[in-house]
Amino acid sequence: MKNIYPTFHTIQSRSDKEQQLRQRGVTLWFTGLSGSGKSTIAAAVERHLADSGYYCCIVDGDNLRHGINSDLGFSAAEREENIRRTAEICRLMTQNGIIAIASLVSPTEQMRELARTIIGSSDFIEIYISTPLAECEARDVKGLYAAARRGEITDFTGISAPFEPPMHPDITIDTTGTTAVSCAEQIIQTIKSRIEYEL
Amino acid sequence: MKNIYPTFHTIQSRSDKEQQLRQRGVTLWFTGLSGSGKSTIAAAVERHLADSGYYCCIVDGDNLRHGINSDLGFSAAEREENIRRTAEICRLMTQNGIIAIASLVSPTEQMRELARTIIGSSDFIEIYISTPLAECEARDVKGLYAAARRGEITDFTGISAPFEPPMHPDITIDTTGTTAVSCAEQIIQTIKSRIEYEL
Repeated sequence: MKNIYPTFHTIQSRSDKEQQLRQRGVTLWFTGLSGSGKSTIAAAVERHLADSGYYCCIVDGDNLRHGINSDLGFSAAEREENIRRTAEICRLMTQNGIIAIASLVSPTEQMRELARTIIGSSDFIEIYISTPLAECEARDVKGLYAAARRGEITDFTGISAPFEPPMHPDITIDTTGTTAVSCAEQIIQTIKSRIEYEL
Repeated sequence: MKNIYPTFHTIQSRSDKEQQLRQRGVTLWFTGLSGSGKSTIAAAVERHLADSGYYCCIVDGDNLRHGINSDLGFSAAEREENIRRTAEICRLMTQNGIIAIASLVSPTEQMRELARTIIGSSDFIEIYISTPLAECEARDVKGLYAAARRGEITDFTGISAPFEPPMHPDITIDTTGTTAVSCAEQIIQTIKSRIEYEL
């Protein structure tokens, strides 16, 4: 890494950005099974925050796999690289004062620790969408669980690959019998003091 | 890419974001030799725009090489991957209504075409900082040209690797005998109509 000279000192600081956006940057990291409702709740959080004047960017794992992570498959190493890059993007946004809303299965403690380390633990809010497997599989919006049961998808989290529930998530949300909007409100209530701008 | 279901439809649209930020998203892509003044002018553009209420994010090639691109070296393939990822980040920002300000040597037409293709040509403004090699080498702020002449750095753009001047840049700036602020003003004058928000 010789010959690389970062110019952080000349560009606007994080606090300049936070002042401009009138908010504090942070990453909301949604983890949970496929079909648990992560992306739906993330979108509801974004809309709700935007209505209150907060500026957010959704960083959706599936969407990134069509873009910056389109070169990555699903091996252990590639899943980790997927997390690493996603976390680096969240970090860049957070450092620019943005509320980054990341939504990825991120099934293991190790993966989430990697994200936390990259983003910085004081900027990382772990939100566990704890919808039980049976409920996710019953919904099966994308037909993925059925395909995994038929063996058409290998290493599918919850069926043929492990999901390690977060040990100390900042927020846990079980979506069973509730709405995305209600879940979003619960999350925003908890994080509000974290994003509020005060001089 | 089966089993990946983007959720673009549920998240806020680009026009929602542009309305919120009261600006149009775009990528300003600075290209030019090492030491040409790209990052300094990029920072001046950011500050000037921020003073006028525009929200920008700097995407600096050197800074990314300490983060998301820290796994990449300087082979042709790695340089291309460096450009690809950087362009994907700019695209993500632009789609979120942000004025992304990218600063990378990006020495070949092919690299810049890759960036333009990823970002979308209507969102890509190519700014060529055309400071002559002799001037960059005379400045040699980072001592890199001296090291390259001594053979301590191989494939150094301008010395032992080619720089292909852009054939049709949107803006060309020669920094010789002028200031970063003056260059920034020139750029902003040219792009102003592009970022202004009108209902």
